[in-house]
Amino acid sequence: MTESITEPKTGLATESATGMPAVPEQRPGDGHEATTLLERARVAVDPALRAAIGSLPGPMRRVALYHFGWEQADGTPAGGGSGKAIRPALVLAAASALGGPMARAAAVRAAAAVELVHNFTLLHDDVMDRDATRRHRPTAWAVFGDADAILAGDALQALALRLLAEDPHPAASAAAARLADCVIELCAGQHADTAMEQRGPDEVTLAETLAMAEAKTGALLGCACAIGALYADAGDADVAALDAFGREAGLAFQLIDDVIGIWGDPRRTGKPVGADLAARKKSLPVVAALTSGTPEAAELAAVYATPHDEEDDLEEIALAVERAGGRDWAQTQAADRMARAMQEVARAVPDPEAAGGLLALAEFVTRRTT
Amino acid sequence: MTESITEPKTGLATESATGMPAVPEQRPGDGHEATTLLERARVAVDPALRAAIGSLPGPMRRVALYHFGWEQADGTPAGGGSGKAIRPALVLAAASALGGPMARAAAVRAAAAVELVHNFTLLHDDVMDRDATRRHRPTAWAVFGDADAILAGDALQALALRLLAEDPHPAASAAAARLADCVIELCAGQHADTAMEQRGPDEVTLAETLAMAEAKTGALLGCACAIGALYADAGDADVAALDAFGREAGLAFQLIDDVIGIWGDPRRTGKPVGADLAARKKSLPVVAALTSGTPEAAELAAVYATPHDEEDDLEEIALAVERAGGRDWAQTQAADRMARAMQEVARAVPDPEAAGGLLALAEFVTRRTT
Repeated sequence: MTESITEPKTGLATESATGMPAVPEQRPGDGHEATTLLERARVAVDPALRAAIGSLPGPMRRVALYHFGWEQADGTPAGGGSGKAIRPALVLAAASALGGPMARAAAVRAAAAVELVHNFTLLHDDVMDRDATRRHRPTAWAVFGDADAILAGDALQALALRLLAEDPHPAASAAAARLADCVIELCAGQHADTAMEQRGPDEVTLAETLAMAEAKTGALLGCACAIGALYADAGDADVAALDAFGREAGLAFQLIDDVIGIWGDPRRTGKPVGADLAARKKSLPVVAALTSGTPEAAELAAVYATPHDEEDDLEEIALAVERAGGRDWAQTQAADRMARAMQEVARAVPDPEAAGGLLALAEFVTRRTT
Repeated sequence: MTESITEPKTGLATESATGMPAVPEQRPGDGHEATTLLERARVAVDPALRAAIGSLPGPMRRVALYHFGWEQADGTPAGGGSGKAIRPALVLAAASALGGPMARAAAVRAAAAVELVHNFTLLHDDVMDRDATRRHRPTAWAVFGDADAILAGDALQALALRLLAEDPHPAASAAAARLADCVIELCAGQHADTAMEQRGPDEVTLAETLAMAEAKTGALLGCACAIGALYADAGDADVAALDAFGREAGLAFQLIDDVIGIWGDPRRTGKPVGADLAARKKSLPVVAALTSGTPEAAELAAVYATPHDEEDDLEEIALAVERAGGRDWAQTQAADRMARAMQEVARAVPDPEAAGGLLALAEFVTRRTT
């Protein structure tokens, strides 16, 4: 499953994923607040992140600096960004929403730890999935080999948990336990993803596809928000609500991302329509279509039973998914998940102004910015 | 580099690695105390280890249970042991030596965490090294594939650090930070090992080979002892001494293991003489010989420049290593390392009776039991 929240997009999101018209002027909720939060998170977290990575022994440091986009493969500086810092921004926004600026400042190290875990899983997932490109560059294993990419990932996980072990904040232990649990859930999600891709098109259920997406994408967004809440000294119910908020927003993101993987994104140049269909990816709209019981479901299953070739008409396949209800289902689900996310955050943070950062980030990741 | 401390050997060590005669009766220092300590550690730590692994989601649990020798590949129970529990035994012996039975009991969870880290690195090293056999069975990647072996390793690292994050003991955070640092050192050691094996026989120095062996084998033994000391509320100097003890003992082990990899071990049936030479392994005695400046060094370099074939006379190569001084150097170094280990432990634990467990384990791992 594409994990592209951190992929550089074409800039400020000014149009919804569903093709709503762009809204050029900046106003609350149009993504401006989110990009400000992301930039502030990057400024706050980068020093801790760079210090942690700088502490690694040479070979792992080199791979990590390359993976984060801070160095070229030959060790010369690179101007590329290391992704959007969505997860650190969620940690800081959750801490801020529940505990104000003091909690936000205290959570910086934890936010760096969450980002390290995210990048450890990216390094390993790319090895397992044989993905050769990330953030418009060759992946670490493609440049340094499998062994060094695996070792760099292992080291980033250790760095993440060391950051929390060395953090004197009273929430650090609970955050570390939660982050370790999340790693295990991410591994389960990656396993499920790989296993499902190897099964036939009629052997996958929608429930397990949703569960996989929650484990693979929702879990770490939920964990980021929960850790922010822990650093604000929140009670169990609020921590759980923030976790649920992040998970629902993560699922909404994945649903929208899967829609874009089939029908394309007018804001993205270069992303071909039907890319996921050509790869025969069992993304959420596809599985919804495959399990719809419609005539198009059987048609789609037949297409998915053989690999993509030149005779494939990707637009026709996309139309079959749409006619089988896959597109509508995904968009309804995404809206439903976002509504649930809003409910969860309202439960823990009744003051809309305090909750504003979290809501802006959730809207940003789902690109529901209009 | 073979990491075979945990490999099942032929039972109680009754003969030194250098071919000294067997001593059949059991007496202090002949390995009986060590095997008792190992068995007691296994009994103490296994419940925590099994509970931790039992908490994993199905796919990773299955790989871990197989790797630990507790299940067959098909999920049926297996009687095989999960190795000798040297590292947990060192944690408990160090805690006991510096803090008595209370500290030992408190350190059980930390001992399980150290064993989980050890096994995480074994899972990943086997993938990277393409080693197909461990503990007389196919390795996890050979049975379940690379992806599941990588994920199971990732999950074991997370489990280890979760065990410490959830441990209310005041030493738990320091232990977690130390264990995370050790993971990074283990990764550096594995990288150095792989990189050195790819270089030519005249491109490797003895100093870097020793540094690699310390990172790959000594670091976790040192960390185990240091964590035991932390759980005994030891001061910084004693923690450092215990770490040094474990590192020196680990290097002594590696030196003896490398000697056995060339000249064989009369206690082991089935281990062919010269196995490491056939694999062209740049083990410590070989690098000592290669860098000796003797005529045999050039001869050995020529042999190592081409892969093993039927015309190879392994006994003749072993003789060249010996004539170049590789065997004597390794045995002298091992004795020297053990002497340093004894000094370190005596510094932290002046009472020989209290130090007895640590010394017995160090003698056991280096098989210097006569």
